Amino acid sequence: MSKLLSDTDAFVSWRSLQQQRVEQALSSWVSADAPADLGVVMRYAVLDGGKRLRPLLVLAACEAVQGDAAAALRAACAVELIHAYSLVHDDMPCMDNDVLRRGKPTVHVKFGEAQALLAGDALQALAFELLVPDDGSMGGALSARLCRQLALAAGATGMAGGQAVDLASVGIALDRPSLEAMHRLKTGALLQASVMMGVSTASVEPGVQARLSAYGAFLGLAFQVVDDILDVTTDSATLGKTAGKDAAADKPTFVSLMGLEAAQAYADQMLDQAHEALSATALPRTETLHALADWVGRRVS
Amino acid sequence: MSKLLSDTDAFVSWRSLQQQRVEQALSSWVSADAPADLGVVMRYAVLDGGKRLRPLLVLAACEAVQGDAAAALRAACAVELIHAYSLVHDDMPCMDNDVLRRGKPTVHVKFGEAQALLAGDALQALAFELLVPDDGSMGGALSARLCRQLALAAGATGMAGGQAVDLASVGIALDRPSLEAMHRLKTGALLQASVMMGVSTASVEPGVQARLSAYGAFLGLAFQVVDDILDVTTDSATLGKTAGKDAAADKPTFVSLMGLEAAQAYADQMLDQAHEALSATALPRTETLHALADWVGRRVS
Repeated sequence: MSKLLSDTDAFVSWRSLQQQRVEQALSSWVSADAPADLGVVMRYAVLDGGKRLRPLLVLAACEAVQGDAAAALRAACAVELIHAYSLVHDDMPCMDNDVLRRGKPTVHVKFGEAQALLAGDALQALAFELLVPDDGSMGGALSARLCRQLALAAGATGMAGGQAVDLASVGIALDRPSLEAMHRLKTGALLQASVMMGVSTASVEPGVQARLSAYGAFLGLAFQVVDDILDVTTDSATLGKTAGKDAAADKPTFVSLMGLEAAQAYADQMLDQAHEALSATALPRTETLHALADWVGRRVS
Repeated sequence: MSKLLSDTDAFVSWRSLQQQRVEQALSSWVSADAPADLGVVMRYAVLDGGKRLRPLLVLAACEAVQGDAAAALRAACAVELIHAYSLVHDDMPCMDNDVLRRGKPTVHVKFGEAQALLAGDALQALAFELLVPDDGSMGGALSARLCRQLALAAGATGMAGGQAVDLASVGIALDRPSLEAMHRLKTGALLQASVMMGVSTASVEPGVQARLSAYGAFLGLAFQVVDDILDVTTDSATLGKTAGKDAAADKPTFVSLMGLEAAQAYADQMLDQAHEALSATALPRTETLHALADWVGRRVS
C-alpha cells in the first residue's frame, strides 16, 4: 500500500506550522480582557485544544485557489470559534451533559453553566467580528460573503438545525438517508463551509467551485462516519472526550446502522469520492487538501 | 406641560405602521421550516411580542439621515433577533430562571432547555445572515459594516460582556459609575448600535455621527433607569415579565442605588441630553427620534 499523503514530511510540517499560526491568531483575537472573566472563559473554550481541522481546511483551500492568505487566516479562526462555541453549548447539562472535552473539564464544569452559555454566545459574535476587520485589510464584498457563508453553516439551515434533529432522534432508528441528512447539517455544513470560505478568498470559476464544494461534502460525511467508529473503538483518554456516549444516549450512528466493518468501508468510499472531486478540479496545488482527506480517514481521535 | 412628541398622531401612526412592517419582515425571514421544529421555537421567541424599540430606532435613524430603507429594515430585524435570542438565553434556569416573557411562558418552559439553547444560537446566526442578502440588494461594504457593528454590540465588548458583569454583580453594592458601565454594555450597546446601524445606511459626516451616537448612548442609559423603575413600580401583568425580580435576586439597580425619585429625575436628565445631542445634529428629520426618546421615558412596560 502506498504511503498516505497525510504521512508525508511536507504535510506533517505544513500541518504543524498552520496549527501554530491558528493558535497564535486565536490567542491574539480572543482577548482575556473581556469583562468579568468572560475573556478567560472564552480562551479556555478555544485555546490549546483540538486538531483544528476546520481552520486547516480553510487554509488549504485558500492555498489551492491561491487566495488571500490574510483573509483566510481570519476565516479559519472564525470557523474555529463557531466550532468551539458549539462544543461549549453542546456539552451543557441540558444537551449532552458532558464533563470531558479535549482532555479537560468542560467549560460549564469549570466555570458554571451561566458563564458557559455567555461565553458560547460571545464566541459566536466574535466569529463574525473577525470577518470584518476595521483596518481596511479586507474588502467589504469579501467580508460580507464570508459572513453569509458562516451564518448559513452555523444556523438553523446548518449546524444548529442539525443539532435540533440530533436531539429529536434519540431512541429513533433513522435510516441511512435520514442519518446522512442530519450529519450534513450537524457537522457537514461547517466542514464544507470551511473549504468554501477558503475558496472565497480568490475568484474561482463556478465549475471548480462546485467540485471543491463536493470535496467538502464528501469529506464532511466521512468525518462523521469515522467519528461514529471512534466512539465505539477508542477510549476516552485517547479521544479527549467521553467515548461510547452515542450508544449510551441511544443515538443513531453509522455503526449502529451498518455495523463497524461496513461503516469503515463507507468512510473509505466517501473519501475516495472526495479525492476524485478534488482531482477533477485540475487545480495545480491540491496536495494538502488530498492529504487532509487522508488525515480525516486515518485519525485516531 | 406641552404635549409629548410620543403622543402625537404622527408618531403613533408611524410607530404602528413600522411595527407592522417589522412584524411582517420577521415573520417572512424567521422560517418555520427549520428542521425538527427549531423554526417553530425560533418564531415563538421572536414573533408577536415586544415594543420593537430597537427596530424602531434603526428605522427612525435611517429616516433622519435619509438612508437606504430596505437595508434599514434588514438591520432592524437583525438587531431584534439578537435581542430576542438574548432574552431566550437570559431566561434559562442557569441565568435568570424566568418563566414569563412578553406575557407568555418563556421558551425553555414551553419547549425545553435544549431547544431554547439551540433556538437562541440559531437566531444569532440568522441575524448576521439577514445582513448579507444574496439577491444583490445591498452592497458588500454596507453589509460588512453592519455585521461589524452588530457583532461588537452583541459580543464580549457589548451585550454578552454586560451580562457577565451582571452575573458577577449579584449581592454587590456597585457605585453609580460601575452600574452605568455595566448597563452601557448589557443594554446600552445594542440600543446605541440600533441607532448607528440606521445611520450607516447613508453617508453621514463624522460630527453628525458622533452626535447621533451620543443620542443613542443617553437614550440607552435612560432606558435602563426606567427599566429599573418599572421593575419596582409595575406589576407582572402590565410588564409581561416577572416584576420585582431585581430586588428578589439582590441585583444592584438605579433605584436601589439612588431611590425612586432620584432615579426618575436621572432618567429625565439623560433624556434631556439625548434630545440635546439630537438637536445639535441640525438634521431636518429628527422628530421621530425625538419622539422615541419621549416614548422611552414614558413607557409603562
